[in-house]
Amino acid sequence: MKVGIIGASGYTGSELLRLLSGHPEAEVSYLTAHTYAGSRVADLYPHLSPLGDMVFSAFRPEEALQRADLFFVALPHGESMQVVPSLLEGEARVIDLSADYRLKDPRLYASWYGKEHGSPHLLEEAAYGLPEFFAADITAARLVAVPGCYPTAALLALGPLAEAGLLGGCIVDAKSGVSGAGRTLSLNAHFAQADESVKPYGVGGHRHTPEMESVLSLLRGSETRVVFTPHLVPMSRGILATCYVEVDEGLSPRRVDEIFRERYASSPFVIALGEGRFPETKNVAGSNFCHLGWHLDEERGVLVVASAIDNLVKGASGQAVQCMNIMQGWEETAGLEALGLFP
Amino acid sequence: MKVGIIGASGYTGSELLRLLSGHPEAEVSYLTAHTYAGSRVADLYPHLSPLGDMVFSAFRPEEALQRADLFFVALPHGESMQVVPSLLEGEARVIDLSADYRLKDPRLYASWYGKEHGSPHLLEEAAYGLPEFFAADITAARLVAVPGCYPTAALLALGPLAEAGLLGGCIVDAKSGVSGAGRTLSLNAHFAQADESVKPYGVGGHRHTPEMESVLSLLRGSETRVVFTPHLVPMSRGILATCYVEVDEGLSPRRVDEIFRERYASSPFVIALGEGRFPETKNVAGSNFCHLGWHLDEERGVLVVASAIDNLVKGASGQAVQCMNIMQGWEETAGLEALGLFP
Amino acid sequence: MKVGIIGASGYTGSELLRLLSGHPEAEVSYLTAHTYAGSRVADLYPHLSPLGDMVFSAFRPEEALQRADLFFVALPHGESMQVVPSLLEGEARVIDLSADYRLKDPRLYASWYGKEHGSPHLLEEAAYGLPEFFAADITAARLVAVPGCYPTAALLALGPLAEAGLLGGCIVDAKSGVSGAGRTLSLNAHFAQADESVKPYGVGGHRHTPEMESVLSLLRGSETRVVFTPHLVPMSRGILATCYVEVDEGLSPRRVDEIFRERYASSPFVIALGEGRFPETKNVAGSNFCHLGWHLDEERGVLVVASAIDNLVKGASGQAVQCMNIMQGWEETAGLEALGLFP
Amino acid sequence: MKVGIIGASGYTGSELLRLLSGHPEAEVSYLTAHTYAGSRVADLYPHLSPLGDMVFSAFRPEEALQRADLFFVALPHGESMQVVPSLLEGEARVIDLSADYRLKDPRLYASWYGKEHGSPHLLEEAAYGLPEFFAADITAARLVAVPGCYPTAALLALGPLAEAGLLGGCIVDAKSGVSGAGRTLSLNAHFAQADESVKPYGVGGHRHTPEMESVLSLLRGSETRVVFTPHLVPMSRGILATCYVEVDEGLSPRRVDEIFRERYASSPFVIALGEGRFPETKNVAGSNFCHLGWHLDEERGVLVVASAIDNLVKGASGQAVQCMNIMQGWEETAGLEALGLFP
Repeated sequence: MKVGIIGASGYTGSELLRLLSGHPEAEVSYLTAHTYAGSRVADLYPHLSPLGDMVFSAFRPEEALQRADLFFVALPHGESMQVVPSLLEGEARVIDLSADYRLKDPRLYASWYGKEHGSPHLLEEAAYGLPEFFAADITAARLVAVPGCYPTAALLALGPLAEAGLLGGCIVDAKSGVSGAGRTLSLNAHFAQADESVKPYGVGGHRHTPEMESVLSLLRGSETRVVFTPHLVPMSRGILATCYVEVDEGLSPRRVDEIFRERYASSPFVIALGEGRFPETKNVAGSNFCHLGWHLDEERGVLVVASAIDNLVKGASGQAVQCMNIMQGWEETAGLEALGLFP
Repeated sequence: MKVGIIGASGYTGSELLRLLSGHPEAEVSYLTAHTYAGSRVADLYPHLSPLGDMVFSAFRPEEALQRADLFFVALPHGESMQVVPSLLEGEARVIDLSADYRLKDPRLYASWYGKEHGSPHLLEEAAYGLPEFFAADITAARLVAVPGCYPTAALLALGPLAEAGLLGGCIVDAKSGVSGAGRTLSLNAHFAQADESVKPYGVGGHRHTPEMESVLSLLRGSETRVVFTPHLVPMSRGILATCYVEVDEGLSPRRVDEIFRERYASSPFVIALGEGRFPETKNVAGSNFCHLGWHLDEERGVLVVASAIDNLVKGASGQAVQCMNIMQGWEETAGLEALGLFP
Repeated sequence: MKVGIIGASGYTGSELLRLLSGHPEAEVSYLTAHTYAGSRVADLYPHLSPLGDMVFSAFRPEEALQRADLFFVALPHGESMQVVPSLLEGEARVIDLSADYRLKDPRLYASWYGKEHGSPHLLEEAAYGLPEFFAADITAARLVAVPGCYPTAALLALGPLAEAGLLGGCIVDAKSGVSGAGRTLSLNAHFAQADESVKPYGVGGHRHTPEMESVLSLLRGSETRVVFTPHLVPMSRGILATCYVEVDEGLSPRRVDEIFRERYASSPFVIALGEGRFPETKNVAGSNFCHLGWHLDEERGVLVVASAIDNLVKGASGQAVQCMNIMQGWEETAGLEALGLFP
Repeated sequence: MKVGIIGASGYTGSELLRLLSGHPEAEVSYLTAHTYAGSRVADLYPHLSPLGDMVFSAFRPEEALQRADLFFVALPHGESMQVVPSLLEGEARVIDLSADYRLKDPRLYASWYGKEHGSPHLLEEAAYGLPEFFAADITAARLVAVPGCYPTAALLALGPLAEAGLLGGCIVDAKSGVSGAGRTLSLNAHFAQADESVKPYGVGGHRHTPEMESVLSLLRGSETRVVFTPHLVPMSRGILATCYVEVDEGLSPRRVDEIFRERYASSPFVIALGEGRFPETKNVAGSNFCHLGWHLDEERGVLVVASAIDNLVKGASGQAVQCMNIMQGWEETAGLEALGLFP
């Protein structure tokens, strides 16, 4: 099948190219980039040299629809919703990696993203692309909104607890590699500033908060608040989400183990390490895996769950490919077999 | 004044040498190292070459007492308590950087450190060397127990809240550079394993937990529990402690600001950045400063306070020198004026 | 085909497991580790968890020969030569990743490795496993000696010049990630020592010097000396070899371009970037590719050639798999299609 | 004495503020920044918070001359020469950290920097601010041109050999931390691009080449060519210059030792480690020291000398302060006593 990538010059775009180069069913037949239209992919990304002389095009809807049947849209939020409707009208399937179709409520979108939503009628229809929880929606969808990197990490840790009725309020303390800031230059992502330093950012106001809260509220069946603090860590890739959940007396370590192991027994990409065995981001680098570990502090009434993913793979492009596989009825792991690159 | 360093070959020892080289009142006249007795300091630590031909001695109590009047003991816990009593008997003052005299209760020590305390009679007497809270004790003390690196970071963030009656249970999610593991080789501190990775460790069982709980309980006046999760982050130096405190409705950002600014108005090393301004470890690297920032999430009822220190300076050797300055009645900042090494 | 890995608990062993997990023809049926015999692979290497419940065995020659037909030997030098002869006698094919069979002259081995060679009769027979130069030897070989990581990087840069008669004496200034030091703990590879630092090591005495000199002498047809200085760089993976070659007046940039492009026109893993376009290690991380760039400084009479590889892949385990593919007549790139993991 | 910093918002400016904060004689009374005029220093650089409420001014020559007697000019090349003449006319002494007054020949400047020099009459007068070689010039100078970071590292390694008549052509392979690229955003200095990667850049065309060649030619007394290849290394600070010099038969290791030890016997900041003992950048981080080590490969006729400095201290702001000390007749080490920050 021919697939297109709209906005292919950023890191999620280059990751899609990397991952799809090994996909048995899909072939990239169209790729666009605004600033770099006309440039060779290999000039921008020498690691993609082996893919040959691919060149970024300028996006034109008609051309796009002629050249591919399914599109990954890797544009910044706000730009994505200007492109997606025309692709859907052309009967293409769309997997959007931006934030534009993740929230169901257009008012929530407006309040967190500072602009009115351009196609609010599509919000309800869009499937939330977290296959471990919404595979059925994804299978049937014309439009899939790939979750944010932080929500992916947090929801894989907290989702099973929400479903099991064990989740009240919770705290998500997340640590991300700097590639999460994308390829756009900024002082935050300037080497000499970010190297050898850890810092919180966006405290109390990060846009992934409403996304986590919405999905957890849905899974749990009642409104759920999340205190979310993201941190920048001096590494390129990886997110570790350390989640704190107040639990009632009587919950046992064995029960927690059961919940996670049963929940993910048939999920090919989630590995439940177990009580007292904690994940590290390096073990999932470059892969679509999520590692989960936990500890029940019975004395203090808190369950600590940590999850590790690669923010650009399971947190973005890999998950997008996983969604495509499900939409197309292919093997869920097609093109995503790579193990973590350790050390 | 002549000072000695017992156990000078580790990182806290080398930091003491670095810091004391610029001290106007104290001079290192004696330094010991078990394994490296007879070796030149400059061979082990070429950055200390400008200090000239210092050589590590083997520790001998009588010689020690002849050659110095105040001692920094930078031995591993368990070894420190074998040395400290003899130094005190010799009428020296002692600043111990190990964990041996931090806890008041010998049973707590035994349960967390796995051995009986060798000199329990000294526990009550030992001052807890966190000058921002215990300066009076330190001034009068023969024996000061320098706090652990994590407790230093956490207590500077949480202490003012405990004193102000605003602290209930709390969560401390801390991120540390790898030098915290010391100079002893381990897989955790092996470059290829630690680089480009974040991971929690010691979850639910880190020995700094009872230390934090004891001091917070004391400051608050009632028993306080801390859920503490340390993480290893791929950098050499620095600790960031992100602390989560449930607060009552009605607390205002202005009140929080007041608490921190007033509390630290006369503390030369604590810089209260303010609401919404968060610290980063790089800004305090190599310095004895602590940077503090906070955000009150009124909607979710949680106050987030983050503090950043250099684990080897304010978290160990710098704080030890600060304690010495207070004990001796010198300028509190003597030898500690260096600013953070940024970028 | 069933393959075995002898000495699978080090980084080259774990890389073999990672790479072979995606190989279409070979299956790992036997893996040994001395210290970790009986341990689960996933406990040592959580990134390999998806491979299931593999367990390290203790090496026993008869069992090995029953369970596999081709062996990768990933033991330290000196140990390898104790194992290889018995495997060859059992009619297995052997790909040795140690230094034991790289040098043809047993006296050279003795002088650089400090011990007599245990099976000098095999030295002449062993093929040098650099497929870009010795594919014919590899095809026919029972025993292949996979080149060292530094020689791989240097020879891919200098080999074409040696063949073209353009090489006199040369200087190889190489920069390596710390994983090159292996999984064995050492102060050199201790995070806090290696992080944020660059240093030369083994200057004038690194064992890869005679390997480079031997192969370049062979390719050039006369004795060739190499001044080789390796450096440790604070990253996990990657080698950059910057090579300096004195050249005669009259050599043109165009001729240099021709030499490299023609030489590697049919090499699937060597990418000649061209004059003035220089490689960076990150573009080949996790992949079997080598990127090459050069600049002819006509005024100063020096040709600078730089090559970048992943020390654990093209510099070790990936090259070993490439050799296996050639030995078995499979597609040279089988199992090695992964692109560099950038960023 | 009151000193001013023109262009204080970059990294060399912030380093000057850091270093001068501990200087016993000089006080910063004036500091300017174009883009940040009106901003608080502590907002841009929180590590400088302890310096209090300093604010960047816009540069005005008259005001500058009223408020200070000596100026550090930390502007980009090309801008510096627009400011320096007016300061000199106002009878101030000037220490320029840009490249504008480093080359004596205005044609060389024009060809390498792509513009005509604006005040060529000052080139001859300007002292080259490498105190280890030009202290007399510096003492007497109105205008000092602080050397580039790479030339500082290379000249401290090669200068003694040039003076001793042992230098022919030479190769300088240098590795720099990313702070060398300054605070200005660029893809080269973007964390996710630079992290975990080494790469050469500016090969054959770096502007520090003519600077090295000019000074070495001067020291040696005849024209000298340098092949210079700078590399970016994933660390914030530090330069390691590995220098290769062809030497005649008959030179002995002892003679090399003598040359370096004698040459630097009275240089407080250069530490000659000796034959076979090589420097690492971390040992000089944050300090004004230079560590030197060497190895004479008698068999191959090459002397390898490596030097390590902190690019922002000895390679820029520290050296500027050292020059000021010499110009003013103060202790050469005033304000520069800090040891390297290791680990």
